[in-house]
Amino acid sequence: MIENFELATKFTQNLFEISDARLLEIEKEAILNNVPILTRDVLKYMLFIVRNEKFKNILEIGTATGYSGIFLSQIAIENNGTFTSIEIDKERYNQAINNFKKMNLFNENVSLILGDALDEIPKLSQQGKIYDFIFIDASKGQYNNFFKLLYPILSKNGIMFIDNLLFRGMVTLEHNKIPKRYKTIVTRLKAFINELNENENFVLLPFGDGVGILKK
Amino acid sequence: MIENFELATKFTQNLFEISDARLLEIEKEAILNNVPILTRDVLKYMLFIVRNEKFKNILEIGTATGYSGIFLSQIAIENNGTFTSIEIDKERYNQAINNFKKMNLFNENVSLILGDALDEIPKLSQQGKIYDFIFIDASKGQYNNFFKLLYPILSKNGIMFIDNLLFRGMVTLEHNKIPKRYKTIVTRLKAFINELNENENFVLLPFGDGVGILKK
Repeated sequence: MIENFELATKFTQNLFEISDARLLEIEKEAILNNVPILTRDVLKYMLFIVRNEKFKNILEIGTATGYSGIFLSQIAIENNGTFTSIEIDKERYNQAINNFKKMNLFNENVSLILGDALDEIPKLSQQGKIYDFIFIDASKGQYNNFFKLLYPILSKNGIMFIDNLLFRGMVTLEHNKIPKRYKTIVTRLKAFINELNENENFVLLPFGDGVGILKK
Repeated sequence: MIENFELATKFTQNLFEISDARLLEIEKEAILNNVPILTRDVLKYMLFIVRNEKFKNILEIGTATGYSGIFLSQIAIENNGTFTSIEIDKERYNQAINNFKKMNLFNENVSLILGDALDEIPKLSQQGKIYDFIFIDASKGQYNNFFKLLYPILSKNGIMFIDNLLFRGMVTLEHNKIPKRYKTIVTRLKAFINELNENENFVLLPFGDGVGILKK
């Protein structure tokens, strides 16, 4: 087993080199402003999957400032597909629009939606949208609710990529060791993980913040 | 980021339940005798890939006592394929045969080979064999040499799954912190990782002992 997880994580993060100055700037800005963005180890893995599977239509729950969405939309567009992302926070949504514009990606194949995913996903569903790849990176307390809405609009053989399932590892602690203010969210996440593990084609990888992969 | 990697690892290992008493016995025996076998977190992930991709012909370098090979061969046979595994140590090879027999898997679709993979892979290659999935779990000092022999017999869209790339995390240490007796092997592994990262469709995941995935 890896003895120093932090060092191993940094080592693998360094294996993903980003050369585009605009992307480096977006990444830096997010880190400076404590906007939670995907670290390069997890990002590289996610892009590895999306590229290999040649996924066309991609949905992201939690745009933040658009960092991961930019990479995902680049691949979606290469594959003649579309990229859709939902963000609940207006300031981040506006920043994401700016960042997509900076990257010349703000076009008819990209939809950035401002709203609560719990309201917005049903609208996409009513429009008959189906996605090949769904990336969930939003409010952990709602993961189970997101999942119920998202599963029906995931295409057959599509993949759902769920970040932060281990919530800094808190999910793996004994109940009495979980800080009181996190007990509800951790209990929900644990139940969600067990449900996926029992009923779905699912695997949980213990790196990053806990990466869940589900294939339909 | 996960704060306690060991706990997170145990948590994900527990998500893979094994109910077959014979398999539990084989796992237990290997652990008792310090035979290095795949831990359940990595095993579950490997089987997730092999099952989803419906891989037919599978090659394993490093049978040990057959634990991972039994799971792999079950899937290969389900998919009307074959399972081939090479082991250098005679005692382990014999144990593997016994274990495959115990599981009723010692049949015409399964080849267990006793020999040095550096000699045996070229023979498979000369026979025109091609594999959809290749699992490397053998002498880390030889990974680069194995790779050169194995890459040509990996099918297009095939996956190579390379375990122990981070070697307990030693690969991520500064050179002067690596114990002297491991310096050569670590230097080789590092060079190998960098080569794969630069030239191949490759990702290194920092869990288990460092899991490398390459797609052709």
